[in-house]
Amino acid sequence: MDASRDAAIASAVLEVLGRTGYAGLTMDAVALAAGVGKATIYRRWSSKAELLLSVMDVVGAPVLEVPDTGGLRGDLVALLSEVVELFGGPSGRALRSLLGAVIDDPVLQEGCRRPPLARWDAAWAAVLARAVERGEVPAGVGRSIAAEVGPAVLALRWLVTGRPMDGTVVLDLIDRVLLPLLQRP
Amino acid sequence: MDASRDAAIASAVLEVLGRTGYAGLTMDAVALAAGVGKATIYRRWSSKAELLLSVMDVVGAPVLEVPDTGGLRGDLVALLSEVVELFGGPSGRALRSLLGAVIDDPVLQEGCRRPPLARWDAAWAAVLARAVERGEVPAGVGRSIAAEVGPAVLALRWLVTGRPMDGTVVLDLIDRVLLPLLQRP
Repeated sequence: MDASRDAAIASAVLEVLGRTGYAGLTMDAVALAAGVGKATIYRRWSSKAELLLSVMDVVGAPVLEVPDTGGLRGDLVALLSEVVELFGGPSGRALRSLLGAVIDDPVLQEGCRRPPLARWDAAWAAVLARAVERGEVPAGVGRSIAAEVGPAVLALRWLVTGRPMDGTVVLDLIDRVLLPLLQRP
Repeated sequence: MDASRDAAIASAVLEVLGRTGYAGLTMDAVALAAGVGKATIYRRWSSKAELLLSVMDVVGAPVLEVPDTGGLRGDLVALLSEVVELFGGPSGRALRSLLGAVIDDPVLQEGCRRPPLARWDAAWAAVLARAVERGEVPAGVGRSIAAEVGPAVLALRWLVTGRPMDGTVVLDLIDRVLLPLLQRP
């Protein structure tokens, strides 16, 4: 019961954030959207900031599952397509609003960015480990910059330039930047 | 007189934004920092949003000047170092605060992102044109993704992950990503 109620409250937070932005995110609006009393929310989270930090564990969760497509290129297409879907979907709208709201608050910002970044790092490591195992990528190549390029270009379009996040940019990134970068000895 | 007063007001806006974030940006604070009366500001800009949009023409201006170092690699080092300096400096703190504040406001966001993006596009085009002229880069290669990668990785560190923007990432970007991408036939 508690777990399903927590899940309903988390979805309500994302829904309200995506719809109204951070300014419209109130405990009242969340309670209404979740169909619970405000006291229920306050029993569990003492402030809007605490509620947000707890919900951030849910945002970005879809990126965790990277199907093994049998090849590095297919895995990268699947991974970056999930990022595009996440950024473009309801969780992405909520996350975007949140990132904007916490940009001058280092503590809240740290709490909001850590879970999605940890999920990205884990998914990237899984894709690379499979590629090394298949012999597609040499083991131990320095890859720090490669790990950042994909999400960086997508995030710049998503947060700043507004250019489309579509199949073209995903394939450009993979075929022109990531594969050459990873496979160069 | 009007031009120097406008410049003083623009610097005051940047200074207040960088110091207090968007929440602390009031006409009163700007007037105080600029050493002018509030009426002077209101005579010229009817709202905080209008004042901001007008000041955005100043933010990002340093990126325009890309010295001709005589070679593509040197030009890229100069260009990306200017971006790092801009992001890390007072204009960058102001821009960062502003981007966060306008993320749910498409009109204000458009006004805030257009001037810096136009300056980046112009600087990038100048560096590439020189490289083509020197014979370092084949003319007419598709370059849309190459133009985005540098600022994207720096902006992701600046706005989201908080990882350091230093010489290491600039040289990694240039030597491992940009030069191979631009020079591949």
